[in-house]
Amino acid sequence: MLRFTTAGESHGPALTVILEGIPAGLPLLAADVDVDLTRRQQGYGRGRRMQIERDQVEFQGGVRAGETTGAPIAMRIANRDWANWQEIMDPAPREGDADGRRRAVTRVRPGHADLTGLLKYDRDDARDILERASARETTARVAAGAVCRRLLAEFGVTIGSHLVHLGGIDAVAPDPLPADLNAAADASPLRTLDAAAEAAMVARIDAIKAEGNTLGGVCEVVVRGLPVGLGSHVSWDRKLDGRLAQAMLSIPAVKGVGLGIGFEAARRTGAEVHDEIEPAPGAVRTGGVRRRSNRAGGLEGGMTTGEPLVIQVAMKPISTLMRPLATVDVATGQPAAAAAERSDVTAVPAMGVIAEAMAAVILSQAWMEKFGGDALTETRRNHDAYLSHLAGRIGS
Amino acid sequence: MLRFTTAGESHGPALTVILEGIPAGLPLLAADVDVDLTRRQQGYGRGRRMQIERDQVEFQGGVRAGETTGAPIAMRIANRDWANWQEIMDPAPREGDADGRRRAVTRVRPGHADLTGLLKYDRDDARDILERASARETTARVAAGAVCRRLLAEFGVTIGSHLVHLGGIDAVAPDPLPADLNAAADASPLRTLDAAAEAAMVARIDAIKAEGNTLGGVCEVVVRGLPVGLGSHVSWDRKLDGRLAQAMLSIPAVKGVGLGIGFEAARRTGAEVHDEIEPAPGAVRTGGVRRRSNRAGGLEGGMTTGEPLVIQVAMKPISTLMRPLATVDVATGQPAAAAAERSDVTAVPAMGVIAEAMAAVILSQAWMEKFGGDALTETRRNHDAYLSHLAGRIGS
Amino acid sequence: MLRFTTAGESHGPALTVILEGIPAGLPLLAADVDVDLTRRQQGYGRGRRMQIERDQVEFQGGVRAGETTGAPIAMRIANRDWANWQEIMDPAPREGDADGRRRAVTRVRPGHADLTGLLKYDRDDARDILERASARETTARVAAGAVCRRLLAEFGVTIGSHLVHLGGIDAVAPDPLPADLNAAADASPLRTLDAAAEAAMVARIDAIKAEGNTLGGVCEVVVRGLPVGLGSHVSWDRKLDGRLAQAMLSIPAVKGVGLGIGFEAARRTGAEVHDEIEPAPGAVRTGGVRRRSNRAGGLEGGMTTGEPLVIQVAMKPISTLMRPLATVDVATGQPAAAAAERSDVTAVPAMGVIAEAMAAVILSQAWMEKFGGDALTETRRNHDAYLSHLAGRIGS
Amino acid sequence: MLRFTTAGESHGPALTVILEGIPAGLPLLAADVDVDLTRRQQGYGRGRRMQIERDQVEFQGGVRAGETTGAPIAMRIANRDWANWQEIMDPAPREGDADGRRRAVTRVRPGHADLTGLLKYDRDDARDILERASARETTARVAAGAVCRRLLAEFGVTIGSHLVHLGGIDAVAPDPLPADLNAAADASPLRTLDAAAEAAMVARIDAIKAEGNTLGGVCEVVVRGLPVGLGSHVSWDRKLDGRLAQAMLSIPAVKGVGLGIGFEAARRTGAEVHDEIEPAPGAVRTGGVRRRSNRAGGLEGGMTTGEPLVIQVAMKPISTLMRPLATVDVATGQPAAAAAERSDVTAVPAMGVIAEAMAAVILSQAWMEKFGGDALTETRRNHDAYLSHLAGRIGS
Repeated sequence: MLRFTTAGESHGPALTVILEGIPAGLPLLAADVDVDLTRRQQGYGRGRRMQIERDQVEFQGGVRAGETTGAPIAMRIANRDWANWQEIMDPAPREGDADGRRRAVTRVRPGHADLTGLLKYDRDDARDILERASARETTARVAAGAVCRRLLAEFGVTIGSHLVHLGGIDAVAPDPLPADLNAAADASPLRTLDAAAEAAMVARIDAIKAEGNTLGGVCEVVVRGLPVGLGSHVSWDRKLDGRLAQAMLSIPAVKGVGLGIGFEAARRTGAEVHDEIEPAPGAVRTGGVRRRSNRAGGLEGGMTTGEPLVIQVAMKPISTLMRPLATVDVATGQPAAAAAERSDVTAVPAMGVIAEAMAAVILSQAWMEKFGGDALTETRRNHDAYLSHLAGRIGS
Repeated sequence: MLRFTTAGESHGPALTVILEGIPAGLPLLAADVDVDLTRRQQGYGRGRRMQIERDQVEFQGGVRAGETTGAPIAMRIANRDWANWQEIMDPAPREGDADGRRRAVTRVRPGHADLTGLLKYDRDDARDILERASARETTARVAAGAVCRRLLAEFGVTIGSHLVHLGGIDAVAPDPLPADLNAAADASPLRTLDAAAEAAMVARIDAIKAEGNTLGGVCEVVVRGLPVGLGSHVSWDRKLDGRLAQAMLSIPAVKGVGLGIGFEAARRTGAEVHDEIEPAPGAVRTGGVRRRSNRAGGLEGGMTTGEPLVIQVAMKPISTLMRPLATVDVATGQPAAAAAERSDVTAVPAMGVIAEAMAAVILSQAWMEKFGGDALTETRRNHDAYLSHLAGRIGS
Repeated sequence: MLRFTTAGESHGPALTVILEGIPAGLPLLAADVDVDLTRRQQGYGRGRRMQIERDQVEFQGGVRAGETTGAPIAMRIANRDWANWQEIMDPAPREGDADGRRRAVTRVRPGHADLTGLLKYDRDDARDILERASARETTARVAAGAVCRRLLAEFGVTIGSHLVHLGGIDAVAPDPLPADLNAAADASPLRTLDAAAEAAMVARIDAIKAEGNTLGGVCEVVVRGLPVGLGSHVSWDRKLDGRLAQAMLSIPAVKGVGLGIGFEAARRTGAEVHDEIEPAPGAVRTGGVRRRSNRAGGLEGGMTTGEPLVIQVAMKPISTLMRPLATVDVATGQPAAAAAERSDVTAVPAMGVIAEAMAAVILSQAWMEKFGGDALTETRRNHDAYLSHLAGRIGS
Repeated sequence: MLRFTTAGESHGPALTVILEGIPAGLPLLAADVDVDLTRRQQGYGRGRRMQIERDQVEFQGGVRAGETTGAPIAMRIANRDWANWQEIMDPAPREGDADGRRRAVTRVRPGHADLTGLLKYDRDDARDILERASARETTARVAAGAVCRRLLAEFGVTIGSHLVHLGGIDAVAPDPLPADLNAAADASPLRTLDAAAEAAMVARIDAIKAEGNTLGGVCEVVVRGLPVGLGSHVSWDRKLDGRLAQAMLSIPAVKGVGLGIGFEAARRTGAEVHDEIEPAPGAVRTGGVRRRSNRAGGLEGGMTTGEPLVIQVAMKPISTLMRPLATVDVATGQPAAAAAERSDVTAVPAMGVIAEAMAAVILSQAWMEKFGGDALTETRRNHDAYLSHLAGRIGS
């Protein structure tokens, strides 16, 4: 029953989020959300817009005296750039609309929703599409994810990410990963744990920027502290792998997702892929066993195993190039150079933060499905009793 | 509103599917479904079970005189093996249950749902889990997908797949792909279009079988004939990429999905990834344009572009090895060798057929959302009018 | 996440139900379902069909050794009449279809789905509609409801109903109602608790039958043993009143629903409607209070109070009259007498059983949302802990 | 796919609505919404709050230059009273919270969500519940409904309501109803069409107010211009009667709903209930027929017939009496007089406006399911083609 909806355009007055199903009594401050909003705005290779916005959430409902009440949580994140765009984005008709004062975008950009959206929704101005398709919408998701992260934190679940590939350069992460993954990753301008690779990536970004080109990459999301048994094997749409995959591939510019070793699993033999199991009586979250490896990435049969959940998320290069791509002008049907709307070279570091947020939402959904409860006290009671039950489960 | 649900166990009496939302008046014969059920059962490297079952669908509702009526379509696929399993799988209690006549599975198999499911659902016998988590359930999905494929075929949409990687061996597909992709792929025992690779793969399967090991691989699903504008950019859960990804990663043993060039997009520059657009007045389905490449795989902004939809699906090796993996016996808590339930070396060719089915379902959902209609006549009328509208859309 | 879907036609091979979300480990026998299937087939005033069918469920999935496994529960209920209808209902095309061997229904019956469905789904033969719109479909719902009732029974929740009005005649029920409501109601051929009214109703049915006319009535559903706090006030679609109302008005021929005193509440003053509250420390399910009356019918703010849940359900007379109504023949567009498909005088007693089933489903959904859990052991643990918590809640 | 979510408390900063699925290109001004917000605030018998708030919508997303874009429509309605409640409702913790500066509500009011919600969500202060359960939330629904009404108006569908009963006094409406139902109803302080009854009702309200008591009543919603075939008979949760019933019973204080003649249908014989059908070649929306009566209220088999849709909605008296009811103080467990939070004598006239809004939402959902389309141009094209098809459907 945990659900969230977002609304708002990139240069409209504000982004709006409604998140419902968070139990009552969860301590929640605006600062809990703002910290992730800020993390999303970081990263080497970003453009001007990131300097303009300093996102801050305003709670509009569902939170009182620093605690959730069980009511839907409404959050508003004002767009500071709105002041500069009121004429173009005004919800109301204006004099001069018929004279094209709003400067329609018609040279649709390849790789964006501009053309597909314009044809689907039968619009003449691609701005009616691109304003909503903009990655700025992910700000709203990060806000929802921050609340969900706050919920999971009550149970010792942590969600982090780091960049493992950028524009042809692989990063080698330490094994094991740092205990506080995000503290380590956030200290890097590219959110990578490999200092040597980081230097090469920075140089690559600078070079690509000079070309007017862009870069993609891969982030790895890691969730620790989950108990065995979230998700379900019984129906296709309840499998946690699928639900996480949908969430990741719904992030703009993401083109691939892998769980655990992902595509690499297709190249190896079964003996090299499957994670052998051994008794580990004290390992409560995994049900009294341990896996000797975690190539599965913490999921078996569409359910968490209790081992760390690992998701690989691949992002294509940003679609807007300063050296524009060939396209058509939909107003004339003639060939044209694509409009340039934005100037980041890469947004892969930010994508990791967004992927964390989406993981937090999906895992909170699965959490509430399993543990139920309308108040944090109740959800915790149910969760703790499940862990106690697990402790004595195997071999007894 | 198109939805489907499946039920049934691998060795129970039957699999059951209910598929709702197919418009009335669609011509539909049992043979339309059976052909895909048979395709799912093929492939070099399968074991004994595939010889036992020769799946055939029985319509239990929603179809009359060779046409759908608009009512939910119920399909039943009997398990021929049921005769041999009645004692173990009987829904009713039996004398001797207390004496363990049902031979509980307690040496849980790594890589399967056995352990996670047993702990989640608090069962003592992993058979209560593995019977449902079995890949046999995908038979029911293929049945649903076959009906959806039949619907899409009315509009000239074709869905095919081919194997592009198996156990470390890449297949090189011809460019362009054959016009009738499945005719070509189904002619190969591995559903691959590269005869040289096929020979190497067969040899690899034979060698791996001798070792008691297993292999995974990658299939590519290709959908042709879709119009621009299925899916939506406006909300995360309506993006078609995410919905397709969920569907793919819900297939047992699938660990990764990529759209278009997938993970490769993360390694290239923007200029090497994005598909430039040029005018093509006669290309109605794409809205009067053509893309010079299709690295995006037919999706921009979470919507179809009208170019072929391309999905990469990576499957891990089958989890049951004849040379068993280490595990625990949940009855004793002691180390044990995993139970062996099944003996395929690889099921990647079949996975391609299942992925086609899941794509058919998701695309039919998106189709009905866009075009509406309760009867095929109405859906067709709406679709055709949309295409007519598209024809004059750009530059006019 | 508890959901159910039905399929099947009145004279097709079988009805099919898939019910998902029932926790694992619930004891469940076919007899638990059959008892309600039989109750649905009783009642003075029914016609021939009820003698033909003696409904029995076959589990096709989700149940093993007398217990649920957590997998979707598939149930099949064969239509015994199918043998007589194979030619007309055959899913496959038959020779002679073009010659009208299937005898199309074109004189559409007022009050049925015949005409609306035929126009919506663009069919020529109203049988394609009426076979699914038939009240026989409710058999499948009763099966799903019986499983849900079995779940709720584990927690001491009982669901009963009785007839309070039939064709102009009111029944006066004893206050308080019998402890075993259904035992008392089922003992009456009309499921009413007022012997004098029963005699008058039987006479009325006999008289009306002679006229070729039909009768409607009202049943009251009463659910006892629910704890406070099912449903929610926070969003319109989570309010339990609305969800119950939908379930009731989805029953064929039901035209009105009231909660507690229902429409009567609109005629009284606030002082005569609201239920005053007083301390009752031992009353755990209601949270340590008692209401001095129960005009609200066990719901406040869209949530259960813990007092008995009371729902009034009004059914119109059966639409098929032996003395046919005026209509049109859709094949000719000319006036005609409506086809006569069935001959019950009234089905109000059966409607009560169906309403019980729908209430069981909705309440089980709300139950699982609040208490979560994948196994009966877990759901029970969570429920019991909630009750313990409630016991000390007020004034402490 | 049309969905809406609301958030916000009665005395919080604002109400928030997100409405998604409205096709692009719908003309939409803030004034289109404000007119219904104002209508909701009228009615004889309301208290002080209605004078404070003069609700006005601010679009936050999904609307540009006076047209919808296809993106989710976010609306914000500021609470003017917020200025007076910041200290009590502040989302952030405040100094003094521990000292009870927020003045907890513990004398829970019978008939409200206060107690059920407090126990369910494990809160100590009933304000955490009542602020969300407040009827002020319906403002957000009216906003969503106003947009849906705007959509339906494009197709000639009108939605009106009038009061037919108040506190024991029936109103007799003219037959036929006025062409512009709301123009007539809104001219009355009680939204009734019976001037004599109106005078009696006003007197009754004055008398009841003097007693510190409250009154309920019944409104009738009438929707004209719908075509045959919205909703569906094929599954319980797609029947339009059920969906409308849920919507109506989700309105605070509503305790009963009837379709057409509603409960009266249970008292009559079949011949007195069913609506005979006759040819009417020019009646396109009904498929070329006419019903001689409309006791069914425009629905057969869970689908619209094309005749006016008629819904009876019964509301109990307002739960807060100035002459307080007996209750418990949850802080002490002792008997207490209920807190008094609000002082309307009756809100039945406003309830009619809310019921119109909910009907508009449900009907728009059913509309989009049938006709599909992402732009108003497309939805209109599909709708018009359906009507053309209907025109030649019967007898041809």
